[in-house]
Amino acid sequence: MSRTPGRKQDSHKISRELFVLTYGALVAQLCKDYEKDEDVNSCLDKMGYGIGIRLIDDFLAHSDVKRCRSYSETADMIAQVAFKMYLGVTPTVSCSSAAGNEFSLILDKNPLVDFVEELPAERASLCYCNLLCGVIRGALEMVHLAAEVTFLQDRLKGDAVTEIGITFLRKAEDKKAKKK
Amino acid sequence: MSRTPGRKQDSHKISRELFVLTYGALVAQLCKDYEKDEDVNSCLDKMGYGIGIRLIDDFLAHSDVKRCRSYSETADMIAQVAFKMYLGVTPTVSCSSAAGNEFSLILDKNPLVDFVEELPAERASLCYCNLLCGVIRGALEMVHLAAEVTFLQDRLKGDAVTEIGITFLRKAEDKKAKKK
Repeated sequence: MSRTPGRKQDSHKISRELFVLTYGALVAQLCKDYEKDEDVNSCLDKMGYGIGIRLIDDFLAHSDVKRCRSYSETADMIAQVAFKMYLGVTPTVSCSSAAGNEFSLILDKNPLVDFVEELPAERASLCYCNLLCGVIRGALEMVHLAAEVTFLQDRLKGDAVTEIGITFLRKAEDKKAKKK
Repeated sequence: MSRTPGRKQDSHKISRELFVLTYGALVAQLCKDYEKDEDVNSCLDKMGYGIGIRLIDDFLAHSDVKRCRSYSETADMIAQVAFKMYLGVTPTVSCSSAAGNEFSLILDKNPLVDFVEELPAERASLCYCNLLCGVIRGALEMVHLAAEVTFLQDRLKGDAVTEIGITFLRKAEDKKAKKK
């Protein structure tokens, strides 16, 4: 990894369209490579994980954030700082469990699908943006937070919004209790 | 293609790091898919072409540029407006032929390789950023300019700078004379 110290924040900004189209090319390539949607989803998640564990350094270096003291703060940080910084959007956060370890990031508009109208019929189970789940999972792991991250709703599949579910896994018993 | 009219320019900006790492994942996937570097290069070029023919609409809509009257103006536009807009860098342009149809875009720093130190020994012929050549070729074709776009130098391969060569193909005889 080669990093130039002292880069200005401004020079980090690029136009989103090139990213969105490049991401589309990546998904298309994986759809060529794998017949099953589940395999594409899993591959996107793995790729995202690899990206997340590297991106966290960049995030901590440039976001100037303090240590989060609760899952709730962490979820807010992901939505209000990380999404804003990397994708230029701010999802709404809601807590969806009494235990306080399950959160939803709700996106009215998903910037990654700007050029996508709908999924092809033969790709109905594709989680087009699954890379994002992997990125979040990988980044959280690097700050010692184990989490399950999955798409709960997806506008590409006809849902009203796009919703990413984050479940923080506290202890072994939590993990067991949570298993679907 | 789904586009929201009246988006603000600001909302188009995202952080470069996520793009750079996602691009890296794409190249890594292609290296898994294809044994020969030439096949990876060709695939990246084709993907880029597909991106370029879509990106040109976005470019014309948001760059507020006037019609170019010469190849020289076009090369400057690519460097000073398009590269700046999409990658946040501005290459130097030089004209490298008496005929006035060959140009070089010279990048002291290539933002796409931020996280790459060097190519693996077994990938010595890989044009890591070949997607960019395809993007430029595709975008130019959509404004009725045929061009050959290739990497002439690459810092990843030990060259002092990264240099993208653009040769505008004017007429059949030009094209023939130009063939290497």
